[in-house]
Parts: sequence; structure tokens; C-alpha cells
Amino acid sequence: MVILITNDDGIRSNGIRDLSKVLSKKHEIYVVAPDRERSAVSHSLTLHKPLRAKEVEIQGSQGAWETSGTPSDCVKLAVYTLLPKKPDLLISGINRGANLGTDVLYSGTVAGAMEGAFLGIPSIAVSNVCFERKKDYTFSASLTLKLVDSIEKILEPEVIFNVNIPDCLGEEIKGFRLVPLQLRNYKNLIETRLDPKGEKYYWLYGVPDDSTSNVDSDISAIKRNFVSVTPLHWDLTDKFSLKKIKKLSIF
Amino acid sequence: MVILITNDDGIRSNGIRDLSKVLSKKHEIYVVAPDRERSAVSHSLTLHKPLRAKEVEIQGSQGAWETSGTPSDCVKLAVYTLLPKKPDLLISGINRGANLGTDVLYSGTVAGAMEGAFLGIPSIAVSNVCFERKKDYTFSASLTLKLVDSIEKILEPEVIFNVNIPDCLGEEIKGFRLVPLQLRNYKNLIETRLDPKGEKYYWLYGVPDDSTSNVDSDISAIKRNFVSVTPLHWDLTDKFSLKKIKKLSIF
Repeated sequence: MVILITNDDGIRSNGIRDLSKVLSKKHEIYVVAPDRERSAVSHSLTLHKPLRAKEVEIQGSQGAWETSGTPSDCVKLAVYTLLPKKPDLLISGINRGANLGTDVLYSGTVAGAMEGAFLGIPSIAVSNVCFERKKDYTFSASLTLKLVDSIEKILEPEVIFNVNIPDCLGEEIKGFRLVPLQLRNYKNLIETRLDPKGEKYYWLYGVPDDSTSNVDSDISAIKRNFVSVTPLHWDLTDKFSLKKIKKLSIF
Repeated sequence: MVILITNDDGIRSNGIRDLSKVLSKKHEIYVVAPDRERSAVSHSLTLHKPLRAKEVEIQGSQGAWETSGTPSDCVKLAVYTLLPKKPDLLISGINRGANLGTDVLYSGTVAGAMEGAFLGIPSIAVSNVCFERKKDYTFSASLTLKLVDSIEKILEPEVIFNVNIPDCLGEEIKGFRLVPLQLRNYKNLIETRLDPKGEKYYWLYGVPDDSTSNVDSDISAIKRNFVSVTPLHWDLTDKFSLKKIKKLSIF
């Protein structure tokens, strides 16, 4: 397959380089990624200023560009302008840190994959729960290749797979688990501080509160050392409410 | 009800001011919004630097703050730190310009509303299709008040209503229509240009391609001069695929 790789950690991250190297053993790889870290930018688009793209070398890739944009910008630029052909698959990652539960809505990694889906390209977002900056992602990339081989035949344009790899050694990983998303809450969200002049400022900060995660979800799968795989769709419509509310006199 | 208002156009926009003025006739209003325009920031969160919040005057509100953050930051700051009580309802808007179809995933307006849902607060995102900067939103605000009255009893913590008001005179509006989202495609997405030194740069730009919108959706409702109302949920899990794929040997 022709595979486009992007991410939100930036083109110099280990995650994107290890993924390109491993996937290139079986596939034709192109890489288009931000020139610096763009975490938590979600689906941000750069509309108010021009974008730059510079060709760079990435081991295993047939073509690689760093851009001044977000992951969403990168995918649009790649598909409409930079790549010589339309990719069969887009992979966003491997991200440094988890993208689980409702956090996927903030995630630049998942936004990159969803952008692919908008353009009719089957897409996968891959994250590793480990947050260490110097991590080697070769093993995670092999797991990704294994998953790609297994789901290649059922890939569909509008379905995104959100994949999280637990932070443990290879032999402890129990396998792949197909699971739904779960609402993720945070504890201790904001710290109020005083600056040197005595003026208040605020720092957003949170530790995930997964105490209620006893259901079979992406969060519980990761806790039990499974690779979580969740199919996502762009359609946020709440079909249950749609049906229930139809009877209101205002509609 | 106690209503928290936010937006992504910034606290000085007409949309937020007209909404506060009109809703305050029947409700207790608080406003927390970005100190400048934050369109297309989606769910961006400010984690790498501190946030500031400054109290300001907004007609009709019991308390109003402008912050250096995004709409998502504003909602977190409001609920955890700034407001004297938990709001019964959050309204994000009135946005200058539509938030229809898959565009909701890029929208700071919808992200603000969804942030409310994450925190257990029923939420509504309101946008006006008109893009004129000096528009008077009093009529749109009255429509919003009418909708709030009608759905007050069925509001639920995890459901977000995405509302779009067509760009036409009051007497031409045909009513409210409950409809699902629709995938929105764009034509002519990127312009490649040369800078004064002859180097390439790119400008993202698009015109919506709604040529296939003959289904009953938010986009077709707006075209026919209805106010579109779409219930949204944070759960992006594709339950259809979840069921279908379960049989693959890898899981």
C-alpha cells in the first residue's frame, strides 16, 4: 500500500521515524509532518497565514516534508499538493503519550487521522502510552505493521482506527482488544498562582480520574496491558436523542 | 437558569453581547470568553503556559471575564475557578459564520459547548451563517431564547445541541428543524504561490461543496431557511464497525 504518515509531535520525533523505517519493509511510505511539536492542537487549521513545506530525509520514506502547519494542515497539503499519488492508508503517529477516551477530541494525532477520513482515506491514529522523550518505538511500529496486515482487507474510507499501545515490555502485552471510547475525567484541573507583582494567573493541569473505568473500554484495555483498538467515525450526531426529541412541538 | 456564555470570536464580538443582553431577561448570565478571536482552534487547550483572566463589563451579565485562552480553556476556568456557582446550561456563541456538518470538528464554538458536556453541563453551540462583522444578533438571540425555553425540560448533561441560524430576515425563517450532521467537502483547497524570493508557499482556502446535500441534514435545513438543531455526543466510537470487525482473528 501507499501509506502517508503524519503526527503532532513533529517530524523529528522518534515515533514517526521508527514507524517509517518499520512500515517501509512492506509498504511505500510518504511522510508529511509539522516542523515542531503541535500537541493538543486538535483539528486546528491554519487559515490566516501561509504555510511552508520543506523536503527532508526520513529513513524508509519515498518522500518526506516538514511543514509550518498543524497535523490537519499537513494531511490537506500532502493529499492535495505534495504527494505524487493518493495514499491507500494514512497513519498518524506514533504519538508520545496516550490518546484515550474523550481526550481523542483534543488530540492532534487523532485529528490528523480524521482529516484523512474526511478526504476518503482509511486512517489509523497510533499512540504509545509512554511519555519518555527518548523512547525507541521499533516494537510499537512492529505491532502497528501487524495490525495493518490484519485489518487491511476491512479498511473503509470513513472509519478511523484509534490505537493505543500500553507502556510495558513486549512480552507483557496481552494482545489487541477492540473496545469503545470512554469519557475521561480529570482531577485537580486548575492551579491558581500569583505572579511577582501579586497578580493572579492560572495553570491548567490534570491527572486522569479513571476510577470508574470498570467497563470494557479503551482505558480499561490499556490498564490490563492490551493494545486498544477503537473504530471512530466523524459523525458526532447523537442518534438516540435525535429520535427521542423529535416529538417536541418546536420541531 | 444559571447560564454560562462563551464563544470563539472573542469577548468583544456582537454575538456574545447580544446573546447576554437577550438571555438576561429570563436567566442569570455569566460570560467567560477569549480576549481575542480564536476561530478554528477546535478543542485546543493551553497547557504549556499560564492563563490570565480579567473581569470586564458585559450588559446583562452578573459577572464577565476575558481570558488569554481558547474556548475550552475558558469553560474549564469558568467552572472550576471563576464562577460563584455551577451553571445549569452553557451556551457557546453566537458565532459569526456557520458550523455545519463535519466542520463542527474544527469549530472552537462547538468545542466550547462540548467542554461543558465533559464537565456534566448541558450545552448548546449557536452559530449564525452570516459572516458580516457588524451584524446585529438580537433576532438570533431571541431565537436562541425561544429554543432554550422549548428544550429546557429535556436538557441532559452529556448532550450538546449544535444550532445554526440561516442568513435571512426573520420573516423568511421557516422554523426549527431537528437534523443529523452531514459530511462537508470543500473544493479548491490549497493555493500554491511564490514569495518575492521565488520560494513556494501555500494558502489553505476552500469553498464548501454541498452539491450532494439532498438528504435531510443540517446543511440542507439551512439551505431551506430553517434553523438547524443537531444533538451531538462526545462518543466518536463507530458502533457499527465495532460489531462488524469483532470477528477478525487479531482481536
